[in-house]
Amino acid sequence: MIVIMKPTAGKAETEAVIEHIEAHGLKVHLSEGEMVTIIGVVGDKSKLDFQNLSIFEGVDRTMPVTESFKLANKKFKAEPTAIDVSGVKVGGGTFVVMAGPCAVESKKQLLDSAWAAKNSGAQMLRGGAYKPRTSPYSFQGLEEEGLQYMAEARTETGLKIVSEVTSLHAVEVAAKYVDILQIGARNMQNYELLKYCGRTKIPVLLKRGLSATVEEWLNAAEYIMSEGNENVILCERGIRTYETSTRNTLDISAIPVIKDKSHLPIIVDPSHASGVRRYVPALSLASLAAGADGLIIEVHPEPAKAVSDGPQSLNPAQFSRLMDSIRQMAPLVGKEVL
Amino acid sequence: MIVIMKPTAGKAETEAVIEHIEAHGLKVHLSEGEMVTIIGVVGDKSKLDFQNLSIFEGVDRTMPVTESFKLANKKFKAEPTAIDVSGVKVGGGTFVVMAGPCAVESKKQLLDSAWAAKNSGAQMLRGGAYKPRTSPYSFQGLEEEGLQYMAEARTETGLKIVSEVTSLHAVEVAAKYVDILQIGARNMQNYELLKYCGRTKIPVLLKRGLSATVEEWLNAAEYIMSEGNENVILCERGIRTYETSTRNTLDISAIPVIKDKSHLPIIVDPSHASGVRRYVPALSLASLAAGADGLIIEVHPEPAKAVSDGPQSLNPAQFSRLMDSIRQMAPLVGKEVL
Amino acid sequence: MIVIMKPTAGKAETEAVIEHIEAHGLKVHLSEGEMVTIIGVVGDKSKLDFQNLSIFEGVDRTMPVTESFKLANKKFKAEPTAIDVSGVKVGGGTFVVMAGPCAVESKKQLLDSAWAAKNSGAQMLRGGAYKPRTSPYSFQGLEEEGLQYMAEARTETGLKIVSEVTSLHAVEVAAKYVDILQIGARNMQNYELLKYCGRTKIPVLLKRGLSATVEEWLNAAEYIMSEGNENVILCERGIRTYETSTRNTLDISAIPVIKDKSHLPIIVDPSHASGVRRYVPALSLASLAAGADGLIIEVHPEPAKAVSDGPQSLNPAQFSRLMDSIRQMAPLVGKEVL
Amino acid sequence: MIVIMKPTAGKAETEAVIEHIEAHGLKVHLSEGEMVTIIGVVGDKSKLDFQNLSIFEGVDRTMPVTESFKLANKKFKAEPTAIDVSGVKVGGGTFVVMAGPCAVESKKQLLDSAWAAKNSGAQMLRGGAYKPRTSPYSFQGLEEEGLQYMAEARTETGLKIVSEVTSLHAVEVAAKYVDILQIGARNMQNYELLKYCGRTKIPVLLKRGLSATVEEWLNAAEYIMSEGNENVILCERGIRTYETSTRNTLDISAIPVIKDKSHLPIIVDPSHASGVRRYVPALSLASLAAGADGLIIEVHPEPAKAVSDGPQSLNPAQFSRLMDSIRQMAPLVGKEVL
Repeated sequence: MIVIMKPTAGKAETEAVIEHIEAHGLKVHLSEGEMVTIIGVVGDKSKLDFQNLSIFEGVDRTMPVTESFKLANKKFKAEPTAIDVSGVKVGGGTFVVMAGPCAVESKKQLLDSAWAAKNSGAQMLRGGAYKPRTSPYSFQGLEEEGLQYMAEARTETGLKIVSEVTSLHAVEVAAKYVDILQIGARNMQNYELLKYCGRTKIPVLLKRGLSATVEEWLNAAEYIMSEGNENVILCERGIRTYETSTRNTLDISAIPVIKDKSHLPIIVDPSHASGVRRYVPALSLASLAAGADGLIIEVHPEPAKAVSDGPQSLNPAQFSRLMDSIRQMAPLVGKEVL
Repeated sequence: MIVIMKPTAGKAETEAVIEHIEAHGLKVHLSEGEMVTIIGVVGDKSKLDFQNLSIFEGVDRTMPVTESFKLANKKFKAEPTAIDVSGVKVGGGTFVVMAGPCAVESKKQLLDSAWAAKNSGAQMLRGGAYKPRTSPYSFQGLEEEGLQYMAEARTETGLKIVSEVTSLHAVEVAAKYVDILQIGARNMQNYELLKYCGRTKIPVLLKRGLSATVEEWLNAAEYIMSEGNENVILCERGIRTYETSTRNTLDISAIPVIKDKSHLPIIVDPSHASGVRRYVPALSLASLAAGADGLIIEVHPEPAKAVSDGPQSLNPAQFSRLMDSIRQMAPLVGKEVL
Repeated sequence: MIVIMKPTAGKAETEAVIEHIEAHGLKVHLSEGEMVTIIGVVGDKSKLDFQNLSIFEGVDRTMPVTESFKLANKKFKAEPTAIDVSGVKVGGGTFVVMAGPCAVESKKQLLDSAWAAKNSGAQMLRGGAYKPRTSPYSFQGLEEEGLQYMAEARTETGLKIVSEVTSLHAVEVAAKYVDILQIGARNMQNYELLKYCGRTKIPVLLKRGLSATVEEWLNAAEYIMSEGNENVILCERGIRTYETSTRNTLDISAIPVIKDKSHLPIIVDPSHASGVRRYVPALSLASLAAGADGLIIEVHPEPAKAVSDGPQSLNPAQFSRLMDSIRQMAPLVGKEVL
Repeated sequence: MIVIMKPTAGKAETEAVIEHIEAHGLKVHLSEGEMVTIIGVVGDKSKLDFQNLSIFEGVDRTMPVTESFKLANKKFKAEPTAIDVSGVKVGGGTFVVMAGPCAVESKKQLLDSAWAAKNSGAQMLRGGAYKPRTSPYSFQGLEEEGLQYMAEARTETGLKIVSEVTSLHAVEVAAKYVDILQIGARNMQNYELLKYCGRTKIPVLLKRGLSATVEEWLNAAEYIMSEGNENVILCERGIRTYETSTRNTLDISAIPVIKDKSHLPIIVDPSHASGVRRYVPALSLASLAAGADGLIIEVHPEPAKAVSDGPQSLNPAQFSRLMDSIRQMAPLVGKEVL
């Protein structure tokens, strides 16, 4: 068994662990590295429930895991990162809401969505122009035309805009319009795309892959950051499990886990996570209560007529009620709704 | 129930299926589309094991259209059920907190835990006397002696008590002491145990199985209820997924899903779900915000010395801070902390 | 990083690992325990792909995992165990086929199944008398009457019989009739049941739990063995995953994994794993090719009329063709079909 | 498509749904049961995003009845497809083995691997030149230089060559060298890449995504095929589950499932599926026995020195023994080893 001490652990804390181990009739082998102190334990381990050691002061963990991500790692930057999105601060104490339709369908649909988002208090407008769809026969998006509508909506409402990019070409086009480049779940390990977004300075919303571990997700962030763009916002959007009563399973624990391992901000997409709009308010409030830095929610002026993801879209009245609840709850968990 | 025929199925094949269905006293509704023919079955489905139809020539697949659980189903009882636990109401607008150690280890440890729970505002004391452990060489619990300490703690503090039962014998013993019989995740489909608990009138806390679907879980509740005991409290405690940064993955969506499909109350166990105590407060507040009716939390006077689950247990000071946050947030989501 | 040497590793092998590590500019801390030698590595780990060390001679593995099972562990008994089932040897070079209906429905149905099994070359008859069903409203089995039919079928055909037990009471009854007590997936962690079966000397067929890890499964075997009954046959029957094109996902890798970690025999249930009879022959041959010691297959004289699991049952002609293929392939993988 | 109404739905709610469907030029078939009303939809489904119907009042859920993939669908092309890879036939009765190192590291390493593959009877050489790696700090491949070594190895040994492409640029480069373009698991839903490969006529080896369903996988094939390139070879390489004793869980059932739903050939990658070389022979033979059309296996002249995936690579002697077993077994399952 191996006990890894925190970089900040002092001699007294290390000795307390050793004392506890030796008190159980076990011997230790001490290995003092450049960064951390590691304690190896020798003897009959059944004498000691070694997992308990993980809650000793100064102990980081009791299993050897060499994390491969560095720039995204909280161990090397303890302060939470706040990202400036054209003047709107994401992370570091704010709670930012991005709202809008799954896909940009028309100028009117987008502007109606934008005003619904704006009037209820969202800070940003979401809307897909390049749509990754499971079937090649589904609607694939308006592409640049869609982004133009997004930019018009920004001019009219003042909302910042976020839209997904699915190829290097899409990044080139979107870079002319958006405030945030979104990388979708299916492309979380499309390393060429990650690196290309890393070479811009535009903030990147990085969705978690459908079955990505937290470590793989932070490594994907690392790809972007290691190219020089440290403006990464993580987005939990549900993971794939055996359960089918929701489209995906929202991994709410990912919020405290990310806060524990990384300094990057994390927001939640309750719409894609559940796939069912009547579950969206509960999941939104749960995300806020768990410490998320914001939400990205599907809102559509007429969900029944949406070309995609209608079932998971809130209508404007539902969204407005949700925003009221968010404004009430945010102060209790130390968040400021802008 | 619906039978979907293959595009290549001929008239003879469709008629053979219809004949079989009608021979069991059921009626059919035929729907012939451009691509496929669909046969709807009307009548008492228990007359026919419909899955067998999938092996008839020309059948693509069969699909059930109604849920198999009835007493637990919201469709047949729209009002939320409130369960009276020796005077404490679970469900129907309250938020109940059960706290205490994973295992009852000694009289002193239990009483210290009970007072910590009580002083911070918990209504019930949890503590395991019969412990299901993965390895036969792990501590298996104090059994009846542990239940006696639980009863003493109730006398001293006024807390109601909840403890796990792992066999018919354990039910017989526990029935003399506890206010709630707990059925653990490993026994969620131990039907003999479910039925036996169903023959008592003691409220049952039914944990979700490690990889149980919501429908299987409600069917397990149905086993208890169909024996005459409708006092079932569901408990979400995390499901098994590929993610390893938490012990299990708390399925927070299960809360609105259960509220959608059943009238039974649902509480959450953030301690077993995460396995990491520093994630417990965030998950507790998220559960409250998502609409849960309560929590069951591991609290230990000295977690580092716990014989089991030390790493996921809060100490009394941590628990006290969490209860303060719960009391602040509960009114915002329409819950009363007793 | 930690390298754990095999108990049988000699000095030369340990030194080869150390040499390799030091050649990469790293230091080692050697810890020679009673059973094994452990090598801790100090320095910048990026200098060495440490996973490669796992294929050095004498190296057991490169991550600390203290297995909790002992009697089932190959490290402490290298020879494969062959279990004597009333004269039929399971494990140690034979390939045993158990066939029959999911549930015993009537005397005629069972005898027809038994003769179909016998005539095609099966050695054992399966048939459920105590049925664990997801819904309390489904057929629950003929209980003792079913076991009596099983015993009659044994007298007529000479086949050995295997049947599931779901409670202590069922064990008491079944012990009077069966050659093998079967513990189903849902009860794999019903420890009272495991221990009770462990107190008999009757061979136990232990199915893997729906989402049990290999280690949990071997720990369940340990519960039986530690009570004095070492006659445990493991049965892989599919695990729960996100994929829905089969009922469960047959974990074919579990066969070489079990052969690697345990000396116990392992058979496969392709019927429950897939839930679709047209996939059963492919999965049966795959199991044989991967090294399984046998199969348990659902065979029904008229699958379309089965009261449960009709869709996954072979009819007698299909089973007969499969047995022909098995007899051809078995010698190629060193198995003898009895 | 089918719409299932809630038991509580009234006539007005059902009529609103029907009106909406008919307004899109589709017809309905109404089936009114004792418990529920079911609406079948007939006509060109692309006229209506049917999922939106789930938010109409009174609707319980909607269910598709036809698959979204067409060109890959066995229902529209019953004969198995055989793909001509520069004269080597994949699918339609052959069993093709692709072998070689995970990554091309040097000319010597590659040629040694190629001769090991050739001498034991492989038909194709695998080797990664563009490496998608979880961490940006891992070795990323030799790129075009690696492909040049591959082409030299082809000239020397006569083996066909297969190599992974991770970007449009890589496709352009690789198209000059390879016989098969490989799309890795991480890029299975990188639709730009799929479409770009679809515009070449080069055969594509399409690995299943880490948590892709069979239907998503066939839809990914559809993206390639709908661009005009019908030469798609599917590759099962393990899926992500909770089990950790193997790197991924080989979904052996995917072989008969694909044979059931598609006419495309399917091969298996036992090396990535297990991550452990001592499990590779068992999984290779299991794949053959289950009906696979071939294998892609990692073989390295000195696995202990491999820069990636050493632990899962066979050495030449192990590979040679495996090929002997394959040649013996193939005729029993109707496959010809070229």
